[in-house]
Amino acid sequence: MKIALAQINTHIGNFEANKSKIISAIKRAEKDGADIIVFPELSICGYPPLDFLEFNDFIKRCLIAIDEIALECKNIAAIVGGPSINPKVEGKNLFNSAFFIYGGEVKRVVHKTLLPNYDVFDEYRYFESNEDFHCIEYKGETIALTICEDLWDIDDDKMYVKWPMDELIKQQPTVMINIAASPFSYAHAENRKRVLHQTANKFNLPIFYVNHVGAQTELVFDGGSLVMNAKGNVVCELAYFEEDFRVFELDWVKTAKSIPFEMSNNFVGEDLYISRIHSALILGIRDYFGKMGFTKAILGLSGGIDSAVVFALAAEALGNENVLGILMPSPYSSEHSIADALQLAKHLNAATSTIPISPAFEAIKHSLSPEFEGLAEDLTEENMQARIRGVLLMAMSNKKGYILLNTSNKSEAAVGYGTLYGDMCGGLSVIGDVYKTQVYALANYINRAKEIIPINSIIKPPSAELRPDQKDSDSLPDYEILDKVLYNYIELKKGPEEIINQGFDKALVNRVLKMVNTNEYKRFQTPPMIRVSTKAFGLGRRMPLVGKYLS
Amino acid sequence: MKIALAQINTHIGNFEANKSKIISAIKRAEKDGADIIVFPELSICGYPPLDFLEFNDFIKRCLIAIDEIALECKNIAAIVGGPSINPKVEGKNLFNSAFFIYGGEVKRVVHKTLLPNYDVFDEYRYFESNEDFHCIEYKGETIALTICEDLWDIDDDKMYVKWPMDELIKQQPTVMINIAASPFSYAHAENRKRVLHQTANKFNLPIFYVNHVGAQTELVFDGGSLVMNAKGNVVCELAYFEEDFRVFELDWVKTAKSIPFEMSNNFVGEDLYISRIHSALILGIRDYFGKMGFTKAILGLSGGIDSAVVFALAAEALGNENVLGILMPSPYSSEHSIADALQLAKHLNAATSTIPISPAFEAIKHSLSPEFEGLAEDLTEENMQARIRGVLLMAMSNKKGYILLNTSNKSEAAVGYGTLYGDMCGGLSVIGDVYKTQVYALANYINRAKEIIPINSIIKPPSAELRPDQKDSDSLPDYEILDKVLYNYIELKKGPEEIINQGFDKALVNRVLKMVNTNEYKRFQTPPMIRVSTKAFGLGRRMPLVGKYLS
Repeated sequence: MKIALAQINTHIGNFEANKSKIISAIKRAEKDGADIIVFPELSICGYPPLDFLEFNDFIKRCLIAIDEIALECKNIAAIVGGPSINPKVEGKNLFNSAFFIYGGEVKRVVHKTLLPNYDVFDEYRYFESNEDFHCIEYKGETIALTICEDLWDIDDDKMYVKWPMDELIKQQPTVMINIAASPFSYAHAENRKRVLHQTANKFNLPIFYVNHVGAQTELVFDGGSLVMNAKGNVVCELAYFEEDFRVFELDWVKTAKSIPFEMSNNFVGEDLYISRIHSALILGIRDYFGKMGFTKAILGLSGGIDSAVVFALAAEALGNENVLGILMPSPYSSEHSIADALQLAKHLNAATSTIPISPAFEAIKHSLSPEFEGLAEDLTEENMQARIRGVLLMAMSNKKGYILLNTSNKSEAAVGYGTLYGDMCGGLSVIGDVYKTQVYALANYINRAKEIIPINSIIKPPSAELRPDQKDSDSLPDYEILDKVLYNYIELKKGPEEIINQGFDKALVNRVLKMVNTNEYKRFQTPPMIRVSTKAFGLGRRMPLVGKYLS
Repeated sequence: MKIALAQINTHIGNFEANKSKIISAIKRAEKDGADIIVFPELSICGYPPLDFLEFNDFIKRCLIAIDEIALECKNIAAIVGGPSINPKVEGKNLFNSAFFIYGGEVKRVVHKTLLPNYDVFDEYRYFESNEDFHCIEYKGETIALTICEDLWDIDDDKMYVKWPMDELIKQQPTVMINIAASPFSYAHAENRKRVLHQTANKFNLPIFYVNHVGAQTELVFDGGSLVMNAKGNVVCELAYFEEDFRVFELDWVKTAKSIPFEMSNNFVGEDLYISRIHSALILGIRDYFGKMGFTKAILGLSGGIDSAVVFALAAEALGNENVLGILMPSPYSSEHSIADALQLAKHLNAATSTIPISPAFEAIKHSLSPEFEGLAEDLTEENMQARIRGVLLMAMSNKKGYILLNTSNKSEAAVGYGTLYGDMCGGLSVIGDVYKTQVYALANYINRAKEIIPINSIIKPPSAELRPDQKDSDSLPDYEILDKVLYNYIELKKGPEEIINQGFDKALVNRVLKMVNTNEYKRFQTPPMIRVSTKAFGLGRRMPLVGKYLS
């Protein structure tokens, strides 16, 4: 039996586009002599459709599209992910399903059993869990068909009480197929291989695993679909961060030799991870613009490393002709800041403009002078400068159709080192899930072949330049230390005692955790951030605003 | 047996404050001769604790506080809500539990079975469902103790597959106790009574129902704890929107006569609902400020009805001495706008200031003139005025410690009729879940005893006053029609066909739905909105930003 894997990039709710893409792949697979073609989880509507699933009209459109696809599957079978209706009165109204289509109609609908409902996942919000386990017989093979999470939960601390493969294995399947929408984080690929390896190995069965590829605002799906032999060794890996299509002869796979793959356990600073983060951010920007129908990006260029990295990423994602950097020097901007920003633009062959903020700053201070009489300048005037920049950038965006990219990094977002409605503006936050120390690594990675980010932007001490001789280190611990404390608290969810016990200064830890928690209100209004870690701000991290914990 | 109900206002994560409040109530109940005192769901940590529950340190603090409370329960029993640890390897790590405390220690821990995971609820994100059903024997009574949602799901379209009371009833309980954190929406009280009535009546058992009271940012808990006799008739209702404490003799309750209560099925425009919305918004403002440690509010006063209503609500919630209205007239502001705003402040005896925006507007236009040369004025300049107001208001906030209240209504938020980083600024959106037609009703309600909102603010045609002779009706359908279409789409989740079939114009419906969906990106960055309806923007409505559905 020949099995085609279609690792496609779908668009949430764009039924026409998704359907066309699926039908094209079916025709290609048929031409290539495939007996069956497999698409990712919920590919009919894109993943994650979120609360669109609560609209009957949306579900109806999914089912109509499935029926239209079925008409194209006369001589080839297809497995397409989509929601289906739970006919029972009890339980949620939907299942997360895989439609097995053959002979011009839907022959079987297999439902997902394990519904992830943690971090960025809300599947139990919409779907009922499957209780009915049957393999699919097709052309002499017995297929154990499962959906994404169904093959996970093999670790010691089990999140679920039953495991679908324990049921399916009773029917003596000859092959496992898993359709997935497994979002990227920088160490996830190894994790995925480990899980699939253990499962294939345990049951002595080959696995065909098809993952979604493409970005849907915050979530990036990295593809990397896999085929493993019955020992659980990888015999083929599809492309990462782009669409791919391959056809395999099942008999060959069953006995094929493995290709080597490396496991890695470090989590920060590794080149491997930085190169992946780089690819994920490029795809994140490109798909956000593509799916929203935008082409041009604008951003504020300070001469610092954050905006430099975002500018370089945007130029690579959208083309240097589609990005515009705006210099908005303040009275406290240093000479080298302007020079560094211009140098960067020159390296990228990208356009810049300079718009002064002093006239607006003076006008606003003057308008407020009756209110502020006798009060010293303070953080207010710093924020004011950041907010005037926000007004100027948004005016350029409104007038000329540029989309503003936010350039705040994860360390800043974590401790609230940023101005709401100022440098926190933007349609998309590019590096909001990238710690400052990782931003340095990204800059060096971008410079791997030649200098793009000016070396001076990398080596100078970070500064917001909103008052004379200001440095980040006036207000914040060194980023080397800060990022480690933040990683322990945010990604690893360690409490203050556990972090202090690792040898960090007690006062520093308490201060950092307090900064994180008291700035929840700022992050509530932050632009969506492209997720690259296991715990990004936004969708996957939900904190009470009025909470009083470590604050 | 004497049962005390403690309807308390807890603060998320504020263990010291919650523990003190619980212990005080225990001492009071003991003095009043109660045998047992009952507190709301998760009262040890406040509801909803969200992802704080993922921190072991947070859970440890919950359990320590429970142990400290237990020491105070030597001669009285207490039922206190809190998270507990699931000892099994399989399943989620926590339960949502009720601790039954007596004799100075925790005697029993009862877990929640039905875990709401829809709208604003994410309980399956954290908790495992209970599988173990036992009543509690205490002083000759057999108590069927359940937690909030456990008593729901009695309607025809069941969301769950099992119902805990079907198990508990086998042990022949003599009384039902339910501890809850059931958030307010304007027609929810009737719904709650209906559900509790059906349950009590079905099992012929009295119910003691204790609800949380107080606001936690978006969510308002309205209290209204209930005691029902075995016929399911209300024999006592605790206060709404404030803390309350009552002690009941169970034998009296079993046979007590009911007090009448009215059912109501209308959803918009009823006085009853408007008065509740009014109370909810007052509590929402007051608790947000109280729990965040703020006292003073600022807002932009346009002379229009939205800002007038918010100003009046804030003055009532925080005291007229703690609110400041800022007039920021533009070149296009009408004379009556200023007069109406000043009249309102006079009625409220609240302070105002006037800060001009023209100097900043001119300075910014001038700074941008090289960029905008040859381009006509458009929406850009309208947004610019709104954003300059944002800068001024935030400067006042930063310099003087006022918290900015957002004054956008739900109709505007729905269709994106507002400027991001301009009039969409604020720490808290007061009427973001109140449709424009309901804002009018609120204004009339606020004026019920005397004119507070100037009549002119109510009767004049709504306008943003950002260009000459602008009216809302230039860009939007009449609010009477718009709000009905929005209600059908947002609250009732009807698709375009279903709405058009009700007799609304097809082009209008498609245009409105498209406006709602294409403005998701604005709402992503909006301040938290106090929830008063069954479907508010924010926590309970999760939509993909890159989605292409009806857009």
